[in-house]
Amino acid sequence: LVRSRQPHALIRSIDTSAAAAVPGVLAILTGADLQREPGLSPYFGPLTRDQPILALDKVRYVGEPLVAVAALDADAAAQAASLIEVEYESLPPVLDLGAALQSGAPLVHEEFSGNRAAEYTVTRGDADRGLSEADVVLECEYSTPPVQHAALEPHAVLARVEGQGRIVVESNTQTPHHLRRQLADIFGLPLTHVRVLVSTLGGAFGSKSYPEVEPIAAVLARRTHRPVKIVLGRDEEFVTTARHATRIRIRSGATRDGRLLAVRATCLYDNGAYAETGERVARNGARALTAAYDIANVHVQAVACYTNSVPCGPFRAPGAAQAIWAMESHIDELAARLDMDPLELRLRNVVSSGQSYVDSGLLEDICFPEMLSQASEAVGRPGRDAGALQPGERRGRGFAIGMKTTNTPSTSTATVKMNHDGSLDVLTSSVEMGQGVTTALTQMAASRAHVPVSQVSVVRPDTDSTPFDHATTSSRTTFAMGAAIEKAVDVVCEQLRGLAAQHFESSAADIELKDGCATIIGSPDRSAAYGQLITGARRGNLIGHATHVTSAKPDPITGQPGASAHYHQAVGAAEVAVDTETGRVRVLRLHAGVFVGVAINPTLCELQVEGSMAMGAGQSLFEEMVIDGGQVVNANLGDYLIPSLGDVPAIIEPRLYEQPDHADVHGIGEVAAPLAPPAIANAIADAVGVRVRDLPITPERVLRALRDGRPG
Amino acid sequence: LVRSRQPHALIRSIDTSAAAAVPGVLAILTGADLQREPGLSPYFGPLTRDQPILALDKVRYVGEPLVAVAALDADAAAQAASLIEVEYESLPPVLDLGAALQSGAPLVHEEFSGNRAAEYTVTRGDADRGLSEADVVLECEYSTPPVQHAALEPHAVLARVEGQGRIVVESNTQTPHHLRRQLADIFGLPLTHVRVLVSTLGGAFGSKSYPEVEPIAAVLARRTHRPVKIVLGRDEEFVTTARHATRIRIRSGATRDGRLLAVRATCLYDNGAYAETGERVARNGARALTAAYDIANVHVQAVACYTNSVPCGPFRAPGAAQAIWAMESHIDELAARLDMDPLELRLRNVVSSGQSYVDSGLLEDICFPEMLSQASEAVGRPGRDAGALQPGERRGRGFAIGMKTTNTPSTSTATVKMNHDGSLDVLTSSVEMGQGVTTALTQMAASRAHVPVSQVSVVRPDTDSTPFDHATTSSRTTFAMGAAIEKAVDVVCEQLRGLAAQHFESSAADIELKDGCATIIGSPDRSAAYGQLITGARRGNLIGHATHVTSAKPDPITGQPGASAHYHQAVGAAEVAVDTETGRVRVLRLHAGVFVGVAINPTLCELQVEGSMAMGAGQSLFEEMVIDGGQVVNANLGDYLIPSLGDVPAIIEPRLYEQPDHADVHGIGEVAAPLAPPAIANAIADAVGVRVRDLPITPERVLRALRDGRPG
Repeated sequence: LVRSRQPHALIRSIDTSAAAAVPGVLAILTGADLQREPGLSPYFGPLTRDQPILALDKVRYVGEPLVAVAALDADAAAQAASLIEVEYESLPPVLDLGAALQSGAPLVHEEFSGNRAAEYTVTRGDADRGLSEADVVLECEYSTPPVQHAALEPHAVLARVEGQGRIVVESNTQTPHHLRRQLADIFGLPLTHVRVLVSTLGGAFGSKSYPEVEPIAAVLARRTHRPVKIVLGRDEEFVTTARHATRIRIRSGATRDGRLLAVRATCLYDNGAYAETGERVARNGARALTAAYDIANVHVQAVACYTNSVPCGPFRAPGAAQAIWAMESHIDELAARLDMDPLELRLRNVVSSGQSYVDSGLLEDICFPEMLSQASEAVGRPGRDAGALQPGERRGRGFAIGMKTTNTPSTSTATVKMNHDGSLDVLTSSVEMGQGVTTALTQMAASRAHVPVSQVSVVRPDTDSTPFDHATTSSRTTFAMGAAIEKAVDVVCEQLRGLAAQHFESSAADIELKDGCATIIGSPDRSAAYGQLITGARRGNLIGHATHVTSAKPDPITGQPGASAHYHQAVGAAEVAVDTETGRVRVLRLHAGVFVGVAINPTLCELQVEGSMAMGAGQSLFEEMVIDGGQVVNANLGDYLIPSLGDVPAIIEPRLYEQPDHADVHGIGEVAAPLAPPAIANAIADAVGVRVRDLPITPERVLRALRDGRPG
Repeated sequence: LVRSRQPHALIRSIDTSAAAAVPGVLAILTGADLQREPGLSPYFGPLTRDQPILALDKVRYVGEPLVAVAALDADAAAQAASLIEVEYESLPPVLDLGAALQSGAPLVHEEFSGNRAAEYTVTRGDADRGLSEADVVLECEYSTPPVQHAALEPHAVLARVEGQGRIVVESNTQTPHHLRRQLADIFGLPLTHVRVLVSTLGGAFGSKSYPEVEPIAAVLARRTHRPVKIVLGRDEEFVTTARHATRIRIRSGATRDGRLLAVRATCLYDNGAYAETGERVARNGARALTAAYDIANVHVQAVACYTNSVPCGPFRAPGAAQAIWAMESHIDELAARLDMDPLELRLRNVVSSGQSYVDSGLLEDICFPEMLSQASEAVGRPGRDAGALQPGERRGRGFAIGMKTTNTPSTSTATVKMNHDGSLDVLTSSVEMGQGVTTALTQMAASRAHVPVSQVSVVRPDTDSTPFDHATTSSRTTFAMGAAIEKAVDVVCEQLRGLAAQHFESSAADIELKDGCATIIGSPDRSAAYGQLITGARRGNLIGHATHVTSAKPDPITGQPGASAHYHQAVGAAEVAVDTETGRVRVLRLHAGVFVGVAINPTLCELQVEGSMAMGAGQSLFEEMVIDGGQVVNANLGDYLIPSLGDVPAIIEPRLYEQPDHADVHGIGEVAAPLAPPAIANAIADAVGVRVRDLPITPERVLRALRDGRPG
């Protein structure tokens, strides 16, 4: 791929003549070629179709794909790409959030009237009146930088075209059916003419939620009549997607005794050059900012802005993570102002079961008080300090809480096929990306069908054959797809009972399924193995399918539709050592309590939470994409730091909270990660009395805060 | 593969030491290794598990796989294989059908008491009494040689082992679910731990019905932890499977005026070294011999014999083809004896609708008289001669009829998935091998769902996801899988009607499906596209599945279960020119009438019949595997002749007979092929008055018959 070197410019000309002469070059594709292709729609995007497959008339960020070269090997393609000359006419760029919303700012997309890509506002009560009635009002601004998902495996795709123009794409996408639809739309094909296959992903964290280079590969495959493979280099990963940088301003008001009366906040999300999921990110952020607290007066406005920067997309608790960083830092600042214990301030204001969710809905199974109390027990109790301090270090502890929604309503369909030996194939489009979903779904199917897990196989997604699923995102899979699978297994079990009733000339109601056999209740000798029943009935296999559409309970007060099927809740706590000479922060211990409802596989759940905390630790202390004049200047894993084993706190304590009465699986993959940064920032403030409001909390920032004496 | 050079011998020793030293060799596998492998069952076979994956203690035919070498490339494997030394201890071989059944004959399998692999007898009335009451009794013996399927694509397999020991096999098999089961049995795994994937086959004709080298590839993949590919060379194809050689003796009795009173026949099938489907071949032959005729007294015994020769398997109308060759030759000989027109003799004796099938069952839709009359019209009418004769040639015409069964009962399951744009994915394990089944099933699904064929895609077999199907054999697929697909589509249509009823607040009974839309009957403006209904209901997709088990109607007289769901019927006719100087036969015209019930795609049906006739022409005149001392001596397509374009008759006339009232699809892939040889033999007799009873009808045989003056 030839990528733009300018953040904002008209494309004057592209000279591909030298490139075309390179031996082995099969096709050179520009945006103009796409526009000439009959029946092809050159735009894509998950919600708004504003992103061109290749830049058309202008480029909107440094790194935007401009030209694609297909060649017999990567060397020939790279050589040809290096010979392509692009002539630009520079336009004034929009390089940051501040510039984006200024009146008269250059437009990233001329066809829109401004640079607002999306906006969402959560309102409750009267924030201004609440603030006016408060004893204490505090206003602060917090920020986060753009950060990288840094999944080990980069974006990769292999596209080919079958007879009759059918497009087959192997991609490491989190959303096979969404990708299928986007490709079908681009090429104007029925869905059956696009096939998406997905193997196990080498990590994603949201970065593979939506199409990136798949459309380019598919167009090239059509043009060259050959399979086309694109694997992004690490440098390209940095200009493909990232987490939204933010600036969040919070004004809160409380009574003297620590009752939160009002919050008014503005959250700006840097969406980069294309809309991607800005709409959802803004919504999630506006909701999450106050979601964990029972506050009568709320006005949170979140705006996702277009800038001439890398397009940003979903990233582990998208939108919510940044809002939680701001709010949980702010709560500690408010506690300090009120001279209250920050834990106590939280306990006094957290939501309770039965209350309304801030953006409509019914809160259930709320266990913040218990989780907070356990976190407090766990972190830094006397005599239980995590590791010894080194000379010049001071110890501190901090807490944070968070609540996020999951995409609702959303649809998952599962098909299960019981073979004639009683073993089960589970057909699902859920994507395994290291989170262990295959294991969890296998367990659910096996348990529901009363067969051992060794008899169950979960098939990899293939849009031809595995049924529709909304997405493997939003911590929804074990919950939503798990429910679909259980229902589908129930259908098969019902058929088994029917076959057994025929076999034993009994009633289906008298049949019990257990250990792979159907048995007449009370007559253990009248029992037949599943396989025996299937073969006996000449059925070859039994098939069951079911669809689960996630739904939210309505708001208990307004009766309006709820925002989310579940409200994922978690508590984080950090114990840190801060070196007052160097500003260096060592995270000694991270604790996270996560409400899981029912843990299908507790070990996997704990590992998810551990991974979340480790990732959160990196974002707390050093992760930051440095962008200069629109150019990412640290687009490699030598300069962009992710936690090494030495950076991961020696003690990470995941703790799961179950409520088995409800027997309802809650997603846990995202909610813990956002808690590490504010818990660590709060622990630093506890240790050395200063506050850092901008991530990452580098030694320089700590030292500067210590020097400036800004109170925490 | 190292293959046996002896037809029957004990394995004294195998020295692999030199082979193991060849660079690139990864594994060398012998039968002894298989016996040492814990949990592995070293035998396979479709009905009887008598065939070792690699020869164990002894070899049973020249060409039997003895040792398998896996190497980094084919050259290294071949070099290593050439260095392997096998020491044999010869045993007396059983080389032909005559020897196999003699008392005291060597045993191909010592564990059995003789060399009979399978036997089947069809009896009706009293054959001996019928013969004793006949005015004319005729007894003759006919034979067929072993012949090759000669599919363009040889047997090929790619096996790999996934995490947790799951075996994935890509194979050009006609029976993916059968192969899955055999591999699961060999390795002692649940079916879910074996995955079989099938792409379009380059022809099969029965040769790919059952596992051949797949087990070897799978064992090697397990042993080497690498993907293992085996592609047979053409020479290896000749020692992998073939059509059974036969010797068939028929004794028939008739009244002076041409009423068949009795037939007593013995059919010997040379099964080769392993049982394969000998059981079904014997059954099919015993049935087919007299199936087309209404004869009160029948005794047909068919025996499949073990010999030390290439194991034989299914081949286009297996068993039946040879029996039809014999009987249809015999009918013309009997007609000559009776001094009757052979067409007239057939017309006087063919079965009729409502009668019993010879081996139990109800005959329906019989249209032999119409097909015979049309064939007579079509072939060699005065003034319509096909091509001019050359000097020394004489023209003749001949006819043949045939009837065969299809595997009953047998099971086919289909799943259909309607996507949220109304397009349909059809999940079926039916195998496309050039017969056009994908096209036919696409049409059936599209028509039933009221969508255009461009909206339907038939998925390639994958035992993980495409549901159970018995086999793509026995001319059953359009009939059985077509029925399953139609029922599965009906399930989806029912769901669509339900969604439409909700959408329009109407009753499902008032909804009509047409052109991809659900419409209130009588209110064309109240209409919604399928996709709109699915998306509106947040369903993502609609899924339907159905199983069709083929069943036979009981016998109208005995009430016993019938033999077959359908009785495929066809009539063949040939017009030939015989050169009395050289014995050369030119087939000027072949006509075939085939009963098809309903033709889903008439062009495809006609092409199937054309292919059948061309294949039959080759078998008539020159196809023969020459075996000398157990060794196939013409194991290549230079010495073994298949029809070239010049050999295919210039005029091939396929004619389809429909009975659309019944709206039932009849298989047509096999029944025409067996008719060419007897029609051609009968035409030769008509032309020059001599009879050749042994296939192929070479010029030498014609000249010998002319010289000997044996009457036709």
